[in-house]
Amino acid sequence: MAEVGDCIFCRIVAGELPAEVVARSPHTLAFRDLDPQAPTHVLVVPTEHVADAAALGPEHAALLAELAVTAREVAEAEGVRDRGYRLVLNVGDDAGNTVPHLHLHVLGGRRLEWPPG
Amino acid sequence: MAEVGDCIFCRIVAGELPAEVVARSPHTLAFRDLDPQAPTHVLVVPTEHVADAAALGPEHAALLAELAVTAREVAEAEGVRDRGYRLVLNVGDDAGNTVPHLHLHVLGGRRLEWPPG
Repeated sequence: MAEVGDCIFCRIVAGELPAEVVARSPHTLAFRDLDPQAPTHVLVVPTEHVADAAALGPEHAALLAELAVTAREVAEAEGVRDRGYRLVLNVGDDAGNTVPHLHLHVLGGRRLEWPPG
Repeated sequence: MAEVGDCIFCRIVAGELPAEVVARSPHTLAFRDLDPQAPTHVLVVPTEHVADAAALGPEHAALLAELAVTAREVAEAEGVRDRGYRLVLNVGDDAGNTVPHLHLHVLGGRRLEWPPG
């Protein structure tokens, strides 16, 4: 594994920081957001460090599919698969991104409003 | 190409319905949302019909990478790459999904609030 350094999500993946893990796959980990915005609010992250959605390219194809499948498994386990859920990726300051390790927000369990922020 | 049928995004891809196209790649098309929620509000869709994010699996790996790259190209072309942008996928009623053809919302050009809906 690459050096963990100061990235808090790399440290969660490495088990150095606690998190309420709800699902995992070979290259993804899903854990609850510490400041949940809906009854279900889970973050799905790649276990290897990727900065954000703007850093994604063809080399991440398999990883992206794995993230999507883990997100669906989270939705199913949380019982929100049928009612629906929202997936969100934030890039940069205007989107309020605060952790520079790609994380897919999975939100559900309530009616989600529009616009999405 | 598969039968276009009544899917409005398949019909846009087929050129049967108008849209303001801003980017395209071999398997994706990006066009402006008709009810924009931010200065930049573009939808990136696969040219082949995929129902929604819950229908994604390993067979969509390359497509997902292509969607991510097209989304970044849209952000760059719109001048929001550096300030930031938000990517949103809605699944089902609780998320307000209205068109059953996978579409990645790209929103930017203003400060996006939290929660994301």
